[in-house]
Amino acid sequence: MAPHPLLDLVRRRISVEEFDATHRLSEDQIRDLVADAAHAPSSFNIQHWRFVAVHRDEDKPRLQEIAFGQQQVADAAVTFIVLGDVRGTEKLPQILQRAVDADMMPQGKADAWVRMAGGIYSDETVARDEAIRSATLASMVLMLAAEARGWASGALSGFDAERVMQEFSIDPRYVPVMLLAVGRPVSHDDARKPRLEVDEILAFDRCRIF
Amino acid sequence: MAPHPLLDLVRRRISVEEFDATHRLSEDQIRDLVADAAHAPSSFNIQHWRFVAVHRDEDKPRLQEIAFGQQQVADAAVTFIVLGDVRGTEKLPQILQRAVDADMMPQGKADAWVRMAGGIYSDETVARDEAIRSATLASMVLMLAAEARGWASGALSGFDAERVMQEFSIDPRYVPVMLLAVGRPVSHDDARKPRLEVDEILAFDRCRIF
Repeated sequence: MAPHPLLDLVRRRISVEEFDATHRLSEDQIRDLVADAAHAPSSFNIQHWRFVAVHRDEDKPRLQEIAFGQQQVADAAVTFIVLGDVRGTEKLPQILQRAVDADMMPQGKADAWVRMAGGIYSDETVARDEAIRSATLASMVLMLAAEARGWASGALSGFDAERVMQEFSIDPRYVPVMLLAVGRPVSHDDARKPRLEVDEILAFDRCRIF
Repeated sequence: MAPHPLLDLVRRRISVEEFDATHRLSEDQIRDLVADAAHAPSSFNIQHWRFVAVHRDEDKPRLQEIAFGQQQVADAAVTFIVLGDVRGTEKLPQILQRAVDADMMPQGKADAWVRMAGGIYSDETVARDEAIRSATLASMVLMLAAEARGWASGALSGFDAERVMQEFSIDPRYVPVMLLAVGRPVSHDDARKPRLEVDEILAFDRCRIF
């Protein structure tokens, strides 16, 4: 049986730094990408991920400056400010109600989940870590989906988190997780960077020094 | 043009809670999955991800207890303890040297990256957040790769992080990021949980209240 095309795409994907500045994505194309990303899993289905899509000519420079001038923010069709909702559990009753209404979950289970999640995520660090994790899972799906749709992506961790909150009027309930540029790459010839060998990153059952 | 099969797989994937306890994965199959996961991107190519694969009958109960008795740890063919290396930058010169030796990166650029990464990740919180992000990106690829290889997965965030460190003798340079069960699902009929609508999680250019 031939390997699933996903495995090939995963191996071919590279993080792009140079984007074709003439390439645009429509708001519908951007919506499609975010809908793909939202299929990621999240704790209790809280879906902590939120996205601000910066794609207008007048807004890109505002974000580029906050990203220390990195050119991909100016050139990529869109750069997402990926956010994680630190107070995601507040929306959980509403989220689960949809599953209850669709007969996919008994009311009692939904109520139990709300109680459990409320307990676990009352700890601020735990809530923040989970928001980062969920938003990161969705970001990875978004990067692969972009590739599958014929575009390319590059995550940027270098940006001023405090300034992005101010400049884009982001509610403090959200933690900025990464910037994610998506567009058409200038070249498809970039070499993939070598990875560590499997046995440098994997141990079986009992941990050893990696 | 038909949509890329990855997009369909992303939509079909569900988090599995019930695994076929008779199903086993070989160590080579586990290695293949981890090799897939390692194609994720990471800041400066640090590759903070590390995996402890718990798959032996005598080791599963140790992990199951730490995961508050969750049955999937006992039943899944393997449960990965996914770790992030908080001191990942220490390995960066060695990682980049491989790219330099392969003529994929000039020595000067490698040296500059080591300096930059050393500066950025000297802050402990920044280093920890990045380790969580990188390990989470790799976890998402692993979940999709498992699906593409005909298996299923389920992430577990409910476990005692301190105890997993002790019980599996994990060096404190690693932060436990999640547990990830992989195996054969008991049923393929589970319904996917409803997601928030795109316009509930996406804003364009200027943030609004989500």
